[in-house]
Amino acid sequence: MTADELKMYGNAKGVDKDTGKWKSTLCHGHPEIEVPGVEVTTGPLGQGIANAVGLAIASKNLAATFNRPDLRVINSHIYCVTGDGCIQEGVANEAMAIAGHLGLDNLTLLYDNNQVTCDGPLDWIVSEDTNSKMRAIGWNVIDVLDGDVSVDNISQALREARAYKGKPSFINIRTTIGYNTLTAGTFKSHHGTYSEEDAANTASPGIDATHTLTEETREYWSKNASKGAALEKSWLNDVKTYSKKYPELSRALELRMAGRYDVKDFLESFEKPDDIQATRQYNGTLFNELLSRVPNMVAGGADLWNSNQMGDQSHRIFDRDHADGRVIRYGIREHAMASISNGLAAYSPGCFIPVTATFFMFYLYGAAGVRMGALSNLKVIHIATHDSIGEGQNGPTHQPVELDSLFRAMPKLQYIRPGDSEEVVGAWMAALITEDRPSMLSLARDPALSLVPNTDRQKVLKGGYVLVENADAQVTLVSCGSELQFAVEASKQLNAADIPTRVVSMPCISLFEEQSEEYQDSVLSGTPHVISVEAYIATTWARFCTASVAMNSYGYSGAGRENFARFGLDTDGIVRKVRAHVRSSIANGVSRHRRWQLLK
Amino acid sequence: MTADELKMYGNAKGVDKDTGKWKSTLCHGHPEIEVPGVEVTTGPLGQGIANAVGLAIASKNLAATFNRPDLRVINSHIYCVTGDGCIQEGVANEAMAIAGHLGLDNLTLLYDNNQVTCDGPLDWIVSEDTNSKMRAIGWNVIDVLDGDVSVDNISQALREARAYKGKPSFINIRTTIGYNTLTAGTFKSHHGTYSEEDAANTASPGIDATHTLTEETREYWSKNASKGAALEKSWLNDVKTYSKKYPELSRALELRMAGRYDVKDFLESFEKPDDIQATRQYNGTLFNELLSRVPNMVAGGADLWNSNQMGDQSHRIFDRDHADGRVIRYGIREHAMASISNGLAAYSPGCFIPVTATFFMFYLYGAAGVRMGALSNLKVIHIATHDSIGEGQNGPTHQPVELDSLFRAMPKLQYIRPGDSEEVVGAWMAALITEDRPSMLSLARDPALSLVPNTDRQKVLKGGYVLVENADAQVTLVSCGSELQFAVEASKQLNAADIPTRVVSMPCISLFEEQSEEYQDSVLSGTPHVISVEAYIATTWARFCTASVAMNSYGYSGAGRENFARFGLDTDGIVRKVRAHVRSSIANGVSRHRRWQLLK
Repeated sequence: MTADELKMYGNAKGVDKDTGKWKSTLCHGHPEIEVPGVEVTTGPLGQGIANAVGLAIASKNLAATFNRPDLRVINSHIYCVTGDGCIQEGVANEAMAIAGHLGLDNLTLLYDNNQVTCDGPLDWIVSEDTNSKMRAIGWNVIDVLDGDVSVDNISQALREARAYKGKPSFINIRTTIGYNTLTAGTFKSHHGTYSEEDAANTASPGIDATHTLTEETREYWSKNASKGAALEKSWLNDVKTYSKKYPELSRALELRMAGRYDVKDFLESFEKPDDIQATRQYNGTLFNELLSRVPNMVAGGADLWNSNQMGDQSHRIFDRDHADGRVIRYGIREHAMASISNGLAAYSPGCFIPVTATFFMFYLYGAAGVRMGALSNLKVIHIATHDSIGEGQNGPTHQPVELDSLFRAMPKLQYIRPGDSEEVVGAWMAALITEDRPSMLSLARDPALSLVPNTDRQKVLKGGYVLVENADAQVTLVSCGSELQFAVEASKQLNAADIPTRVVSMPCISLFEEQSEEYQDSVLSGTPHVISVEAYIATTWARFCTASVAMNSYGYSGAGRENFARFGLDTDGIVRKVRAHVRSSIANGVSRHRRWQLLK
Repeated sequence: MTADELKMYGNAKGVDKDTGKWKSTLCHGHPEIEVPGVEVTTGPLGQGIANAVGLAIASKNLAATFNRPDLRVINSHIYCVTGDGCIQEGVANEAMAIAGHLGLDNLTLLYDNNQVTCDGPLDWIVSEDTNSKMRAIGWNVIDVLDGDVSVDNISQALREARAYKGKPSFINIRTTIGYNTLTAGTFKSHHGTYSEEDAANTASPGIDATHTLTEETREYWSKNASKGAALEKSWLNDVKTYSKKYPELSRALELRMAGRYDVKDFLESFEKPDDIQATRQYNGTLFNELLSRVPNMVAGGADLWNSNQMGDQSHRIFDRDHADGRVIRYGIREHAMASISNGLAAYSPGCFIPVTATFFMFYLYGAAGVRMGALSNLKVIHIATHDSIGEGQNGPTHQPVELDSLFRAMPKLQYIRPGDSEEVVGAWMAALITEDRPSMLSLARDPALSLVPNTDRQKVLKGGYVLVENADAQVTLVSCGSELQFAVEASKQLNAADIPTRVVSMPCISLFEEQSEEYQDSVLSGTPHVISVEAYIATTWARFCTASVAMNSYGYSGAGRENFARFGLDTDGIVRKVRAHVRSSIANGVSRHRRWQLLK
């Protein structure tokens, strides 16, 4: 970045006269991952700490996998600068606890301890002994008491941190916010601009105070450039030696760094089971096959690995003694899990494909992390099981009814809700094919009751497709997930009751919306009634549908299958609601209602 | 609850033969707040700890407000039982940090430390020194080393905890999960049922193992009932004395406990400003008036109190020295803030009306807490400012575009997005009038550019209403928030361009959906085009609209007002998109498009 680009900070306004496009510069405002040199997008407090933990796990894992005693080609130490705000956040406390548990000694957290936050002095809101807390959760703590004036002491602490083995390091640097200005030590220095008086005091007259380097600084950084170049040259030399001495490993590392792996044929031909399985169950089988075949994949769960049916957890665990493990036990820390995964993915594009797992409901705990991954174009795959009232026993606190509305609206997140084993394969194809966005696979706890006909893994990539055609149809039922089976059964009964009905499977709305208008029309058009069937509050469906069979409340702590009946979402409920609706339409002389309707 | 009701646990299945309704018993499954004696709905891990902190703050605050040295009529001590899971969660760590900071010595956390979670042994995921951590964040720690066998030691610890002053207490009770069974000490005892062999070992032959009390236990609890009755009698005596000695206080306390206050006239007549203010600014003015008038209101923010413009924070702060304060500094702990507020509200219905405040985007951190409040029918008011791309400077990480989709879909949450000062008053009327659900007020950072005509606080209670009528209209624009001003300006230009347009203000979709079909029709019907205008991803709008002027991506770190232009959501953008759409409809010979369309 040049000084001129820096000077555009906050000034990328208006339309460019030459291009006619809106101005957008490298440094227009809050810097994000798109800017070269910015490794992760932060902003929401605490995310950066979790990202740093992910970067440190990535580096540890890659080093353990590829380094050899004589050649350490992977050797990153992760530095994260944080403040009084981030370390209060739950996500940060979760992430710091995992880092301590895993003994990530390639991670250094520099705490700019200035005792001031947005609203005022820190002691208004914090009275903890932070060093003791960090020690209690497994960190090496180093104090720097004179951070305002001593760069040397900070440098010394950084050297100590890098040398310390077995624990991540926390450097507690006491500083004064706005040091040497009139608002020093107060929240008035937290954001905003300095007064003219301050600017006059901190710069030589006539010199641009904010964009001028002293000769001393310039000289120091100029020297550093050549030092960096020499280090890079030496490393490239090591890489060259490595490629000769360990040609197979070197090739594997190259493929990792290029984000390359090949499971296309495998996924196209992998057999689905003969029996009817819950989508979570078949997903577990497939996931374990993929984990064996895709070395880039590093997965982890939030203490529901068994319930998620993600497979045997006693193998390949990543821990302080097995840094080459590929299954991370995140603990009951959903938010950190999502945000740490972003750090893993950001380490080098494609080198890691992080997979997370918990109940769908608890992605609400980690939703801010899921969002940051989407916003940052990071390929992370979230496995969300127990995805509806079909979960049953745990009750409404564990039964999502509105969560799809969030994730389906979240730009660049691919939310996929397969209806059976065949579509689970398609969901993984869609998740793996895309390079620039996270995916969420929404899976059911209970097995379906009946086989769904005509599902097609390849067609999942189109987001939605016709499952059961009917040239005379008056009604199109659009469904996904567990409810797809009920929609298919309902269509049979509706056909038998002289309401000709066709069925569309729509596992991924965002993929469907990327298809041509013609394709979308061919799937959804032609019937006066287009009715969605899903056990969620119907929001996104109204884009395509004239009516919905849907939830209108929270769920219930009962038996899973019975819950579908309780809320009128089983076969009988669908038939009853659709028949009443179609009859009332005919009685009222309308072929199609004016507005979307929730069927009762 | 009777033993028979207890025996219905997990058995409330099927339809009741007598009533024809689905069975639902007190103890059908996961117990929730509706069950007498259940004080808060928990389930998602960590929520209960935050709820307990809220209950403790409520009790402290009410005691400091109403007790007199000779008569302590409010004297609750809050007990919360937690496990290895809850205390890993971010929300719990945030809540425990606040409790320590505030010195809530009326709170005791009993930690059932059995070292096992769902997936396996705790040391797979945790290696912290929990006692040291708790001490570091300001808790009194008491150990019970023999929790399996010594009720006396637990009782003694509880007495110590209750007597300890200045800090909340953490009783670390070492236990064995599934003590005395074949799966003791393993995750197999975490959930599920015991084997027949275990059941045979733990009960006398022929006795129902899970629903039988020993004589000793029965006798102990029978004694306790009379002890409780005596305590209640003594307390009622105190209350009687209190009402005679402090009649005014007693009357005030009665009103509080009845959830009664009166701001109807005030809200109906409170003047809106002459100038155009940001909704957050006017909200701040109104909120401070309400805080003075409604003693039930206890508010707090997550370190953005100044930016939220919630008013002077140097007054009435709740802290360890001022327990009668009514403004809580939650610190940068959004999730805990939301969940603690649920505890405050649950203390006694209506006694506290908790208000929270942060940026809209950061309610995603606390969304699980907001949801628990809605699911639990708790009246909490969330103030969400900086609610769109109009926020500007902080960029996409701070700019919600999909968050409304979550909160508008969340059952029983009242999400209200007023368009100007007049509607801010209406939003508060709607929030205060309802007793059984939380509300979220979604407010803008920047002032509007033009006055919006015809807004009406009373009509906000209907959710949506006609702002600008036009008998010949071809187009209805439906809008809210900052975008309402642009919709109104756009309607003028569209009218001038021979596209007759009317404008509907829709600050609250859920309230609108509660209105009669006739009313809804009168507001939305009659024009071939019904087009929503809002700077969010359009999901919920598709229920009512034929097309939307909306966001299709994350935002941008630029100037607030310019962002509306950048994304085609200012007056010019709306006019351009609507004109193109209407013209294309005419060219294609359709009065109304088949499906909802996102206008480009």
